[in-house]
Order: sequence, then C-alpha cells, then structure tokens
Amino acid sequence: MRKICVVGIGAGDPDHLTLQAAKAIGRTHVFFLLDKGEAKASLIELREGLIRHYGHPHKRIVEGRDPDRDRTPADYTGTVADWRHRRSLVLEELITEHLKDDEIGSILVWGDPSLYDSTIAILEEILQRGAVEFEYEVIPGISSVSALAAKHRIGLNRVGRPVQITTGRRLAEGWPEGVDDVVVMLDAQQAFTAHPDADIYWGAYVSTADELLDAGRVSEVAERIVETRTEARERHGWIMDTYLLRRPEVE
Amino acid sequence: MRKICVVGIGAGDPDHLTLQAAKAIGRTHVFFLLDKGEAKASLIELREGLIRHYGHPHKRIVEGRDPDRDRTPADYTGTVADWRHRRSLVLEELITEHLKDDEIGSILVWGDPSLYDSTIAILEEILQRGAVEFEYEVIPGISSVSALAAKHRIGLNRVGRPVQITTGRRLAEGWPEGVDDVVVMLDAQQAFTAHPDADIYWGAYVSTADELLDAGRVSEVAERIVETRTEARERHGWIMDTYLLRRPEVE
Repeated sequence: MRKICVVGIGAGDPDHLTLQAAKAIGRTHVFFLLDKGEAKASLIELREGLIRHYGHPHKRIVEGRDPDRDRTPADYTGTVADWRHRRSLVLEELITEHLKDDEIGSILVWGDPSLYDSTIAILEEILQRGAVEFEYEVIPGISSVSALAAKHRIGLNRVGRPVQITTGRRLAEGWPEGVDDVVVMLDAQQAFTAHPDADIYWGAYVSTADELLDAGRVSEVAERIVETRTEARERHGWIMDTYLLRRPEVE
Repeated sequence: MRKICVVGIGAGDPDHLTLQAAKAIGRTHVFFLLDKGEAKASLIELREGLIRHYGHPHKRIVEGRDPDRDRTPADYTGTVADWRHRRSLVLEELITEHLKDDEIGSILVWGDPSLYDSTIAILEEILQRGAVEFEYEVIPGISSVSALAAKHRIGLNRVGRPVQITTGRRLAEGWPEGVDDVVVMLDAQQAFTAHPDADIYWGAYVSTADELLDAGRVSEVAERIVETRTEARERHGWIMDTYLLRRPEVE
C-alpha cells in the first residue's frame, strides 16, 4: 500500500522541526511540492533546505502546478472548495504517476496541518473519488499561533477562559461573542484597527529571519503596524502575519 | 545575567520534541522540576528521559515541592491565582539558590507553553516582585490539541470559520456563541454529553503509549467514552484528555 505523510514543519524556523517530522522526511521516497507557483521564495528555500538536510539521498521530488486561486472572491467558501478540488486533481495525478506501491510520499506543510490548511481535506477528497488508494498519516507541527505566543511570551488564554482562533474576514464582521481573547490568521484587511481598546500582539514572518513583532494598545500601535505591514509586504512580495487581540482586564 | 528557558516539549511522544527544544535542553545548566508531587509517573519518566538523552553531562536537576491545590474549588480563578502565587515563591527560591550568574535554567512544559499553562505567568510574577533578576525565553511545543487533530487526521477549523478552545467548566455552561467547532481541555465533568447532536473527536494520553482515541456522533459514542475514561482514570490514577466537538454541516 502506498502511504502519504502530511508533515507539519513548523512556522518558519528550521529548528521548529520535530524529531518525528525529521524522521518522516528521512523515510520519504517522494516529496510532493504543490506551491512553487507562489511567490514565497524564502519559505520554499527553507523547505528545500529541510529536504536536503533530513531527506534520504535517493529521495525524489515532484512538483505540480498549484492551480490559480482568486484571493478576493465574492463567494469565499465556494471558491476555496473549487480550488481544493482542482488541487486534489493535481495531487492525485502526481501520486498515481510517481508513488510506487509500498513507497512513502510526503507533503510538507507550514505550521500545523490542523489549522487553516487544506492538505487533509484534499487527501480525503482524493480517497473519496476512489481512483487511487493510499494510507495517510498526519504529523503535527509548531503552528504560527504557538510561535507568535512564544515570541511575545504570552499565554493565548487567560485562567479558565476561552480563546477563539478566527480569520480577518470574520473579525471584520465584529468582535466574536463570548471571548475576550481572539487569535486572527489570514487577515488581509487589518481588521484589528476597528478595536482600539484591545491589546494586540502582532507578528509577521514569525520565527524566520524576516520576523517582525509589535505589541501594545491598538489605539497606540495600529498605525505603526499597518505601516510596517505595508512596507514589508511590498518588500517581500507577500506577507504572513498573525495576531492575538486581548480585551484588557476590567480593573 | 541568569536566563530561564520555558521549553515546550510536546504532548507526550518524545519525538514531538523540536530541534529548538532539544538544543535548549542541551544548553541547560539547571532543570527546575516543580511537579514531582503529582501522580503522573509516566509523564515524569518521559521528561526525565528527555533530560537524560539531550541534557549536558554536567547538568543539575533541582526539585521543588509543588504546592497543593484544590482541584474542585468554588472560586476557580482565585484558587488558581493563589496556587500560582505559592508556586512562584517555590520557583523563586530555587532560582535564587541554584542558578548562578550567566547560567541557563530550564522548565520543561508539556504541550505548548501558550495553552492552559501557568509557567509564563509565574515567571512574570517573580520578575514583578523584583527579588531576583533573569531574562527568559519561551520555546513553543506541540500542544495536545495539535496532537489530537493529527491522530484523528482532522482540521480544527472548517474553511474560513473560527474554532474556540475552552474548558469543560465553560462548556458545561452551554455551547459557546458564534462557533460550530469547539476544542475542550481540562474537562473533569464530561461536558460533551450535553451535546448529543455534535460529532466528537476524543483522545486521552494522546501520543503516549497509553493513547486512547474515539470519535463519532456524541449520541452514539458518549457512553463508551465515559466508560473508557472512567476505567483509564482508575487504572492510571490520572487522566489528561482533550476533544473537538463539531456541529455537523446542515445539509
């Protein structure tokens, strides 16, 4: 039986790699790369470094063309579902063509495969179509959320209280009900600016050489973060940022 | 300057250790152990194994008596604050007595230090008292939440939607507003049983040799999970379980 490993490789620092992930990379016969089309050259280099460093000498690397994706669609969920579907067709073809029986193929995923990542859903879609058979395993990784919290030296939750992880798109609709601590991923619109009374713990390219961190009351730091973000996004051609918004304790 | 490392060591599998954490363990002069009083012998063994394996030959290990703690208090937040305060006094004394200038002391934390862990807050309390000075650094780890999701091969969130991480105590007050996906930690009361229409992805001792996993519609699996949980808790003397509750898609 063919086997696929979905390997969480952490948020950008090569030392985020777990021993479990390093061993999985070492056992891998074929690495499937799907996102060469994206502009994140520094991340791709980091990933290639991990494969070079921990991979087997006879490993093979196969690349698929990542389908184009509308980044600002009207129908977000439908567009993502369509993009996943097309991606699943690309990956299915790669598996069929390049992964032999009893071989292990790996997909390296930034952060943790359980948070805002589509790889598991894509594998399930391929299995449901039934044209190719394989087992698969998921190896957890350090998420950008954990990396952010570590760099700011904060807990995500306060004692006995909940924390919500959500998207910029959702936050733009209003502060979520029932929580005072909100982690925001995928925020292209800087939705934090609408919450001047909250504290923000912000980070971009966290745990890479390009890391940017900032923190403070939103009313005091929002302008600075927006400027930093715009400048960095232009310079790098892309940005990946994450933040925790925290309602201060009422004294 | 003295330095303290708060090192996330993952959810129980020794291979969850990151390279960053292994390096930090190797650089450590003094390990501070605070929870020998607790009954989790298998976890303590695992941690000692990590220190043996990755630690420096001349490392020192010092143990403090973890203050007793009322596990079912009327005033939860106040009781935790009081326990943290007493714990901070114990740790302060250990640092003062055992960590020399320019040495590195480490505290190994299960899971990720940013999720339902008190170590960062305790260090901040010590620094605020001002009786001892040190720098400190936090190293992220694989949380039990990431480990659970990986074992069940699920995403925590659904496309573009939020996920809330909360406690059993909170869930017992009702399903949180505004989310269909809820991760529950620290549930001593099996609060999931009140939500028969949800799907549950449950795990105990996840990623250890004693791992237990179960999943299904709560109405169908709740009784089995409660039985498994009770039996395991008696056998081991303790239990650490986590689960995701997911409202099924409305067709």
